Amino acid sequence: MDPILSISCRTRSTPFTRRVTEAGVKGYTVYNHMLLPTVFDSVVADYVHLKKHVQVWDVACERQVEIKGPDASKLVQMLTPRNLQNMGEDQCYYIPVVDENGGMLNDPVAVKHNDNRWWISLADSDLMYWIKGLALGRKLKVDVFEPDVSPLAIQGPKSNELMARLFGDDIKELKFFRHRKIRFGDNEFTVARSGYSVQGGFEIYVENTKNGEQLWDALFEAGEDLNVRAGCPNLIERIEGGLLSYGNDMTIENTPYECGLGKFCKGDAAKDCIGADVLQKELENGPKRQIRGIVINGDATPPCRDPWPLVNAEGKPVGQVTSAAWSPAFNTHVAIGMVDKSDWKIGNQLTVQTSDGDRAGEVRNLPFV
Amino acid sequence: MDPILSISCRTRSTPFTRRVTEAGVKGYTVYNHMLLPTVFDSVVADYVHLKKHVQVWDVACERQVEIKGPDASKLVQMLTPRNLQNMGEDQCYYIPVVDENGGMLNDPVAVKHNDNRWWISLADSDLMYWIKGLALGRKLKVDVFEPDVSPLAIQGPKSNELMARLFGDDIKELKFFRHRKIRFGDNEFTVARSGYSVQGGFEIYVENTKNGEQLWDALFEAGEDLNVRAGCPNLIERIEGGLLSYGNDMTIENTPYECGLGKFCKGDAAKDCIGADVLQKELENGPKRQIRGIVINGDATPPCRDPWPLVNAEGKPVGQVTSAAWSPAFNTHVAIGMVDKSDWKIGNQLTVQTSDGDRAGEVRNLPFV
Repeated sequence: MDPILSISCRTRSTPFTRRVTEAGVKGYTVYNHMLLPTVFDSVVADYVHLKKHVQVWDVACERQVEIKGPDASKLVQMLTPRNLQNMGEDQCYYIPVVDENGGMLNDPVAVKHNDNRWWISLADSDLMYWIKGLALGRKLKVDVFEPDVSPLAIQGPKSNELMARLFGDDIKELKFFRHRKIRFGDNEFTVARSGYSVQGGFEIYVENTKNGEQLWDALFEAGEDLNVRAGCPNLIERIEGGLLSYGNDMTIENTPYECGLGKFCKGDAAKDCIGADVLQKELENGPKRQIRGIVINGDATPPCRDPWPLVNAEGKPVGQVTSAAWSPAFNTHVAIGMVDKSDWKIGNQLTVQTSDGDRAGEVRNLPFV
Repeated sequence: MDPILSISCRTRSTPFTRRVTEAGVKGYTVYNHMLLPTVFDSVVADYVHLKKHVQVWDVACERQVEIKGPDASKLVQMLTPRNLQNMGEDQCYYIPVVDENGGMLNDPVAVKHNDNRWWISLADSDLMYWIKGLALGRKLKVDVFEPDVSPLAIQGPKSNELMARLFGDDIKELKFFRHRKIRFGDNEFTVARSGYSVQGGFEIYVENTKNGEQLWDALFEAGEDLNVRAGCPNLIERIEGGLLSYGNDMTIENTPYECGLGKFCKGDAAKDCIGADVLQKELENGPKRQIRGIVINGDATPPCRDPWPLVNAEGKPVGQVTSAAWSPAFNTHVAIGMVDKSDWKIGNQLTVQTSDGDRAGEVRNLPFV
């Protein structure tokens, strides 16, 4: 039997946890010290529904770090090799954040409000500690704190329709990774076209915990005939779509180039980034390993709970798989892994040493197509 | 039914996870992105056993931050208001770590190897990010990284006997919060008399993941007739003993004075601590609220998964309970909470608004006696 999660105040509830419980959540993980649902019906049933209908996801665990003050933009540019100079006040950017060695500390979405105010919407690490430490060490004029803001994601092919019913047809025009304000009752929330699926959708940044349930209920009322359901980031869908997971597929041991994020490391502004010198060298030499899709053939595999070694035809260890799932769409196991340069060519045959024995694997592009 | 924990590579396994699984672990929490067992038999049965016998705890989630280099001691002193000047190379100190506002970032144990090399043994937050950010911002000559070191705790009244059987009678002489080296096979490990219980015991800092199972097995072989079992930090025992839990009983919103850790904020060296000015002001004015024991009378309460408000006789909110459990020793519910100055007097009667309704409560000292 799978062990239960012992929930305490330390594994923080979200503004939506009561509704998530009522919706019959069966599994959780802990993400930024907060509850993140992982399964409602079954991972496969959740996946099938997500691709057809619309789901509401409690992703409050994408905690925000607010950076406020005259040095805010300078500080955000120090965090990432991505050039932020031409970023508009209605834009979100996916930004690799690296340390002085070019190692990944997080891969958040930066939400720019204006030059003096940003939200950094986090993957799973206490990046606020890094940002605060840097700001203090460099004596920058900024306040850095976690505001009471909890993202709620609306994902799936019917998400446009559901959002339009509540917030008007204009919302359909919102472009990818752009944000705007929406009114809800007496409140105004930031909403972006974004989310951790490739089905399309929105993330509403719900301000003030007390507003959570009211918004949740309004979405379910408006979406009843759309077959709206409670959902969550889906392991199968995100692997098929090539969406990386910080802490799974990349860690502080990896550079953005290794993670296939080299396209976010260009531009002159990157020289202001902590770790810029190391990244420049990595750009010149090329990374030693890189993220890849892996197809795993043969028998069912157990969940990937520890990295599975990848071994080439000569028996040499050449990387590891860190996420894997059965894909109904491709009728095989799909996986994400890091593969050494010697063996990273698409189509290359490798052995995957799963926790349930060896399987034949093949290197593929991400996303799977 | 309690939701399961969805285990992935991101919720890291430890060197002992296979043995913990074989021992029948029933519940986990996630702590520093790593699996931490919470229950084997039942929380009460685990508690009874811990107080009588000896347990081996997988506390690898107490991740280490190694600080190495000529500025190491200077940097560690910047982290904490505790005076480290006279600390010996065989000592461990419990250190509150605060930010520039005096807010708690972690409450780790600092293990001093020498002036140029420290381990910071973490509670649940990515303190390495703060330490790295500070070191970089201040241009200090240090390396800061997570070494491959995983604590294994031996706790309970028979821990002296079990340790002596494996490492010789000398180990019995090791004083509280002192550390020394022990030989195990070809390896040398640091061991301290410490641990997150008040039953007494040791923590072995196991270097190199591959050594974990061998040490685990040796302890169980040597302790069979001592009734050694796999265990874990026990909710009941740690509340009775007044052991605080970062993320539960204190957060970045609290100063060390609020957490009852004022005794660790003395000495001239504290002026080198980040946040020293704020803490000095807090010392002069006194904290506005403080950690207390709370006895909760009446019917059984559910687990404390969200802070329970405390209300005084006039109906005014005066704090919150963040940890609670039924105590067989005191035949009542024991709890830990933060209480406003107006109502923090020992013996004061308060209402505890649990998630299952109101209960009568009384303010007590910590630890409970």
